[in-house]
Amino acid sequence: MNIGQNIYKLCKELFPINRSLTGDGVRETLSILKREIPDLSILEVPTGTQCFDWTVPKEWNCKEAYIIDPEGNKICDFSQNNLHLLGYSTPIDTTLTLDELQKHLYSLPELPEAIPYMTSYYKKRWGFCISHKEREKLKEGQYRIYINSTLENGHLTYGELLIKGESEQEVFFSTYVCHPSMGNNELSGPTVATYLGKYIQSLQNRKYSYRIIFIPETIGSIMYLSKHLKEMKETTIAGFNLTCVGDNNAYSYLPSRDGNTLADKVALHVLNHSEPQFKKYTFLDRGSDERQYCSPGVDLPLCSVMRSKFMEYPEYHTSLDNLNYISAAGLEGAYSIHSKIIDALEKNHTYTSTTLCEPQLGKRGLYPTLSEGTKTREIVKNMMNFLAYCDGSHDLIDIANIIHVPVWELYEIIEDFKQHTLIQ
Amino acid sequence: MNIGQNIYKLCKELFPINRSLTGDGVRETLSILKREIPDLSILEVPTGTQCFDWTVPKEWNCKEAYIIDPEGNKICDFSQNNLHLLGYSTPIDTTLTLDELQKHLYSLPELPEAIPYMTSYYKKRWGFCISHKEREKLKEGQYRIYINSTLENGHLTYGELLIKGESEQEVFFSTYVCHPSMGNNELSGPTVATYLGKYIQSLQNRKYSYRIIFIPETIGSIMYLSKHLKEMKETTIAGFNLTCVGDNNAYSYLPSRDGNTLADKVALHVLNHSEPQFKKYTFLDRGSDERQYCSPGVDLPLCSVMRSKFMEYPEYHTSLDNLNYISAAGLEGAYSIHSKIIDALEKNHTYTSTTLCEPQLGKRGLYPTLSEGTKTREIVKNMMNFLAYCDGSHDLIDIANIIHVPVWELYEIIEDFKQHTLIQ
Amino acid sequence: MNIGQNIYKLCKELFPINRSLTGDGVRETLSILKREIPDLSILEVPTGTQCFDWTVPKEWNCKEAYIIDPEGNKICDFSQNNLHLLGYSTPIDTTLTLDELQKHLYSLPELPEAIPYMTSYYKKRWGFCISHKEREKLKEGQYRIYINSTLENGHLTYGELLIKGESEQEVFFSTYVCHPSMGNNELSGPTVATYLGKYIQSLQNRKYSYRIIFIPETIGSIMYLSKHLKEMKETTIAGFNLTCVGDNNAYSYLPSRDGNTLADKVALHVLNHSEPQFKKYTFLDRGSDERQYCSPGVDLPLCSVMRSKFMEYPEYHTSLDNLNYISAAGLEGAYSIHSKIIDALEKNHTYTSTTLCEPQLGKRGLYPTLSEGTKTREIVKNMMNFLAYCDGSHDLIDIANIIHVPVWELYEIIEDFKQHTLIQ
Repeated sequence: MNIGQNIYKLCKELFPINRSLTGDGVRETLSILKREIPDLSILEVPTGTQCFDWTVPKEWNCKEAYIIDPEGNKICDFSQNNLHLLGYSTPIDTTLTLDELQKHLYSLPELPEAIPYMTSYYKKRWGFCISHKEREKLKEGQYRIYINSTLENGHLTYGELLIKGESEQEVFFSTYVCHPSMGNNELSGPTVATYLGKYIQSLQNRKYSYRIIFIPETIGSIMYLSKHLKEMKETTIAGFNLTCVGDNNAYSYLPSRDGNTLADKVALHVLNHSEPQFKKYTFLDRGSDERQYCSPGVDLPLCSVMRSKFMEYPEYHTSLDNLNYISAAGLEGAYSIHSKIIDALEKNHTYTSTTLCEPQLGKRGLYPTLSEGTKTREIVKNMMNFLAYCDGSHDLIDIANIIHVPVWELYEIIEDFKQHTLIQ
Repeated sequence: MNIGQNIYKLCKELFPINRSLTGDGVRETLSILKREIPDLSILEVPTGTQCFDWTVPKEWNCKEAYIIDPEGNKICDFSQNNLHLLGYSTPIDTTLTLDELQKHLYSLPELPEAIPYMTSYYKKRWGFCISHKEREKLKEGQYRIYINSTLENGHLTYGELLIKGESEQEVFFSTYVCHPSMGNNELSGPTVATYLGKYIQSLQNRKYSYRIIFIPETIGSIMYLSKHLKEMKETTIAGFNLTCVGDNNAYSYLPSRDGNTLADKVALHVLNHSEPQFKKYTFLDRGSDERQYCSPGVDLPLCSVMRSKFMEYPEYHTSLDNLNYISAAGLEGAYSIHSKIIDALEKNHTYTSTTLCEPQLGKRGLYPTLSEGTKTREIVKNMMNFLAYCDGSHDLIDIANIIHVPVWELYEIIEDFKQHTLIQ
Repeated sequence: MNIGQNIYKLCKELFPINRSLTGDGVRETLSILKREIPDLSILEVPTGTQCFDWTVPKEWNCKEAYIIDPEGNKICDFSQNNLHLLGYSTPIDTTLTLDELQKHLYSLPELPEAIPYMTSYYKKRWGFCISHKEREKLKEGQYRIYINSTLENGHLTYGELLIKGESEQEVFFSTYVCHPSMGNNELSGPTVATYLGKYIQSLQNRKYSYRIIFIPETIGSIMYLSKHLKEMKETTIAGFNLTCVGDNNAYSYLPSRDGNTLADKVALHVLNHSEPQFKKYTFLDRGSDERQYCSPGVDLPLCSVMRSKFMEYPEYHTSLDNLNYISAAGLEGAYSIHSKIIDALEKNHTYTSTTLCEPQLGKRGLYPTLSEGTKTREIVKNMMNFLAYCDGSHDLIDIANIIHVPVWELYEIIEDFKQHTLIQ
């Protein structure tokens, strides 16, 4: 099995679990991820903890939830698809007329086959999500409503993976574990993050340290920043929000607020040379945890490289964003881009030429000794172009951009030049 | 009557008066404007006053001027149209042949119906302006020439309206009162300036102070700067030359020399969102008092927002730029743009978010508590986008530009956020 | 004879001489140039001198070289065309089969009539260059090979012309004298440089000093920099590599590495207004001594203005780049552009207006006293536009660029304004 298939398999295993901001589904998810990367720490903060302007909410769990229609059929069964239940629904056990029930039903007329994904985290409500097609079949009569949920003081649970490198400087990845049974948004993020964690652990002589967190969206990132902002502002050189990295339909880039950070630079370089047809959004198109990481005063250097971006594909936030929507190829593509980004960051350095004027490559066996006209010149040009910009003011990615080559085509040249101490 | 109609009525009243650099026509014009805005100060500087490289010229007045043709008809009669007389014509009472007279006649072959507007401020001359059609009808014979003018030591007369605000910092408007009977260039400038003066006086809690001056072009602005340059360089945050603001054919923008002042920023923002089809000139197209206000060493932050720009419409500087060329709608459009500019300057401020990360709008009743998919997100986006850039480095206009909304769509949001102390 | 014809005549005289990195051909070439400009110093550095990463090679000379074919015909005769011999060929006197000989032959199948230009400076080899058409006619049999060359300790010979001006600040020209019998690349460079030297010497009240060097390519510029880098970094305000300035097919511009030096600014200004169809290359297209002059740590402000650029025309580095490829018109065009560049540098200055507001040109006889409408205004605009930017932050070339006129159209205005002390 290749890496894409492995990631897909992990998605499949995690798919049925009911995740939300809090609760046992998050714990179960993180324990499976810890099986894959044992260094993952699973941490909790209690309900009521103040995080900047926000408060950690009550913990929500649900055992059972369904509706019995007038003919005695069980519909909107949470055990069949956890999207049927409005997230954070309060418990109820009652009987209602269809009219009364309708106020608690959510469906999408424009996507009649899809169960929408809906939540009510901060206002007490109950509700069911149903495909519009099923909703239209509902007949007059008495409906039994049953939600066996709890909303009690408890914890917000999250995962943190810290991987040390030579430097205290960190590369940061954030992904979220609060979405129930959906694929691209969002099992792709935590599963790709898990395999990137394995990849980083496999790198020898890591220059940078790495921080990967698995949190619930919004409240999780705000909570995490409220605990770690000071250190992260000091150490983070580049960060990436890992979301919507599972389908095979597109590549997308969403910049940092600043638009000009190292994260943006490396992401754009890798995308331009690997997937030049990628779609470029603006920070105005944001919608995930970059909203917090790039907020005024936080301003971490973080951007997002995605496959089909949240809110930009019809299946988004519905039961159609399922295991069929994502694929091993889609997941592997995103994994590959992000591992290229990690490689580029690790190799990136501001190299300086050790000679004044061009060095004599020939006497070191690095230059053809016979000038054979146009052809040889072109080959050597790549080496000379790299050296021509090793002036202490351009890093490797800058130079690759100036001389129009992907950064990985320079890795070998750099090793040669280092060996001959032509650069430092 | 709406404001446009009021301004037009004022133009009509002022139209017949013979204005020039100096003289009783300027005094009469200013006294009518003072009736509208009693706080207007009418000031004078004597002939011979040195103003930088220039000297205030003699005062010119004219009682009568005409030509009697060989058949005894009175032509080029100053009392019929003051454009017939070359501005600053010296007195004369003589009889000439047609050939001799021709050297003193000015007409426009390309606009045969129009009387051109001509002056000779700094060289002693006399002359008459005539439509080319009439000129061609002139027959051989003796012509009686009569100009009963005076060119004597006197004064240059101008108006100054100072309106105090909370701050010493000033917004500056300059307009000119030296043009005889013409409409767009120039009765529109002083009349629109008068109504903007009324508007500014009506504003409660004015942040800025305002300075509006009514001067003759060139010598007037140079004279005024020679008296006030030091204080104006210290206090002026934005200035606007008010000219050609009367017709309904176009909107035009002429930048400051720098091109990047607050005046330019606010003018471009308002034009882009109100009249996006406006014509953008460069500083090389200048021709009015911006020549002085933006000259090296003066460098006031001043630009011009006009309707049809001087030198860019065929009727310019002829008898065809009359009360038919301008209109209530044209004047009101210019008034409206400039009052939007004033509003934007008054509201403009560098707001800073008071929270780290996004605030929880929901607990303040500012955010829908149920995530209803794509639609609700879009509505809230405008609020969140504004907050996302309240980082202490962007002022309100910058943010409006970044998030692609007119600044006035944020006025209410700002009030809400201020009330909830989410920004400061 | 015009200047182009004179330069062409000099090319013709120099054409037959066998030039290389070193040797008597370089000495003979420089002695002819010294006849034209007696102030030229001819200097030598010995074999083995260390120059940054490089070492001055042995001196190479060749008396005779040819091949006798199996039928007794002398072919590839160095005395007929010095391109026949691989530059820096070691001596040999032997007999080989055709197969053995083939390893030492160089030809261009794509240009079958052309003898290629080839060298082997830093690896000991011998070889002959031959048109592909002749090569294909060679028959099996024994070939006598004879190269009567020497490769011995000696000198690298170069020329240096220093012309003092009022200022220690220098304008630098570099050209090379290492190419055997070719025209555009390269007899055009040293011959045009010679005539530019004459032109500079003829200028009265030179503001700048000038340094023109005649060196072998690469090793020559590296050698020269190793001796003069410190002073040149302190004094050089603009430099130009003079190469490929002989044909009449194109104008080309190759920027400095920085792209934004005074040399680039003046070159682009002159080209834009004189030869707007010129071809703009990037620093990635470099290939001559700009590789050294613009290398990291050297960073002289140097660019190249060429006719057909090296490597960009089919005749390049072959026997087809001969006296027919270049022309008097081509040489004169390049001479003219470079003398305009010199003029612009000499006149370039940051002028400052001496008045606040516009000066009154009329009282100085510089302004028409009668406002005759649109037409007169346009004429005066050029004068006023120049003054409007004399603010102490724009030099003459900047202003000319802003107001869209060639710098030479302002020379007269500057003299007028200086005379009236309106600028300083």
